[in-house]
Amino acid sequence: MGKKLAVVALGGNALLRGDQAGTIDEQEENTALTLENLVFLINEGYDLIITHGNGPQVGNILMRNDAGEQMYNIAQMPVDICVADSQGGIGYMIERMFRNVLNKHGIRKNVICIVTQIVVDKNDAAFSDPQKRIGKIYTKEEAEHLSATKGWIFREEVKADGGFRRVVPSPVPIDIMNCSNIRDLARKGNIVIAAGGGGVPVYIDEKKDVRPAEAVIDKDLASSLLASLTGADEFYILTDVPYIYINYKKPDQEIKEFLSYTDAMKYLNEGQFAKGSMAPKIEACLNFLKRGGKMSVITEAFKLADKKYGSKITMEYED
Amino acid sequence: MGKKLAVVALGGNALLRGDQAGTIDEQEENTALTLENLVFLINEGYDLIITHGNGPQVGNILMRNDAGEQMYNIAQMPVDICVADSQGGIGYMIERMFRNVLNKHGIRKNVICIVTQIVVDKNDAAFSDPQKRIGKIYTKEEAEHLSATKGWIFREEVKADGGFRRVVPSPVPIDIMNCSNIRDLARKGNIVIAAGGGGVPVYIDEKKDVRPAEAVIDKDLASSLLASLTGADEFYILTDVPYIYINYKKPDQEIKEFLSYTDAMKYLNEGQFAKGSMAPKIEACLNFLKRGGKMSVITEAFKLADKKYGSKITMEYED
Repeated sequence: MGKKLAVVALGGNALLRGDQAGTIDEQEENTALTLENLVFLINEGYDLIITHGNGPQVGNILMRNDAGEQMYNIAQMPVDICVADSQGGIGYMIERMFRNVLNKHGIRKNVICIVTQIVVDKNDAAFSDPQKRIGKIYTKEEAEHLSATKGWIFREEVKADGGFRRVVPSPVPIDIMNCSNIRDLARKGNIVIAAGGGGVPVYIDEKKDVRPAEAVIDKDLASSLLASLTGADEFYILTDVPYIYINYKKPDQEIKEFLSYTDAMKYLNEGQFAKGSMAPKIEACLNFLKRGGKMSVITEAFKLADKKYGSKITMEYED
Repeated sequence: MGKKLAVVALGGNALLRGDQAGTIDEQEENTALTLENLVFLINEGYDLIITHGNGPQVGNILMRNDAGEQMYNIAQMPVDICVADSQGGIGYMIERMFRNVLNKHGIRKNVICIVTQIVVDKNDAAFSDPQKRIGKIYTKEEAEHLSATKGWIFREEVKADGGFRRVVPSPVPIDIMNCSNIRDLARKGNIVIAAGGGGVPVYIDEKKDVRPAEAVIDKDLASSLLASLTGADEFYILTDVPYIYINYKKPDQEIKEFLSYTDAMKYLNEGQFAKGSMAPKIEACLNFLKRGGKMSVITEAFKLADKKYGSKITMEYED
């Protein structure tokens, strides 16, 4: 087993940017551009597992569920089904575009997408303090009605135009179904797409039945766990900044190209990284190293092929 | 490799009946009841690949796409993405419910769902004569507008309340991506869910790129091809009638419990089987035998465990 295994997490922007309308043409073009950069890792001899976000896509699926109920009285699907839908649609799109990128480069490799359930703990503190905002912005009256009829929990938006958004828990992933199959498929040379959108969140009840969780799991934490459970050597988070920064967007901003576990943890604890954005990415990187991973990388997709770019965190680097 | 491999196609009714509202509770209950019957095949020692329809579910996804565009101006997804979405949502649901059925029976087997692209021929005659009705019923004015803006093709409904429905081609499946992985996973003892909704329809262009087809593939023809390509011994279609009938619903109706290939083909050519319903199922069964399969079975899910029930077609039976 001489080949290195890498898990590469594609951020939301890698598939659909916030300034785009969300058409399939835009998504396909972004995806192909992102995947072009992974050819570098394939040529370097890596086996690959790809994970991806689903923020804009599952947001649209939730909005369509709302609209379908209002216009046509079609039963809304719960969050777990919406996440699973997004794994199917996005996973298929990535698989198809990846096949075409490989074809363009004359690389003979197969691509396969696994619908992935990820297990959380029903007693995770997140379930009593839901924080993750999903779906559309409602008026106060709509939110009160939905709260009464569906039991949804809402929080007021802080932005100028206000309104209310549904919040769901974002529990910590503790196990991933089919991770040994995902590893075996990757080790046989398949590029495996898995754990999309942080995985379909489920928990195991007292009868050992698998039950759906009305929750969403952070994509980077889920990807990091998948990297550990598949015995990956390296874990890449592709996002919309080229580096990890200290004093980000301040006059004394500093690029951190090489970080040790200890220093990254220190900066994390100092609050150097934005909550819900860079902080969970750093946490995901550190978790991977703590569980035995060799290197975590945070960078932009199109900087991947240039080894000078991107921030690398390992156990041994000294700041 | 002493174990027999069976491909079992679950009909639309196995997951959601036409008289139901389509809530997730209904779908989960139907699915669990259907899967209970497959325990018989597992106890008989079969390796299993499960395929499924997606008619009601993808119908709802298409309607939600329409509503989302009208209410919130969210870009509609093309048919291939909608089918892939349905593979994710339904596949996850079947996987989760199957895990619980296995848990109830104390059976230790893993379940895995593969998002599946199925290749059609761009020159298939179906592309110049789209016949498969999908999505909502529109007024004449709406249909004309959508035809002009999106290039959709419509046909008038024959039912009393009329209206127009979009039609898409239903080409013949010619190849299935990842079928060797699907076979290997099943042969290692995983229950594999694949080729949902007839598969995500794609074609290979002159550059050998994989391109999406705005089409839907018949679920039974796709399942039959998967059975052949994975080297399955037996192919089961679970539907809403317990047998194949001759002179169906006529005074001289006759149950056909055992049918030879020759006789089934004769009845098919005589027009004994309803177009778009039993006829493609018989065709799928015969294709499987012609390509070397040992036995095709058509029956209701809950009759599966009783070997006296159901219609079996083989090469050698004589009528």
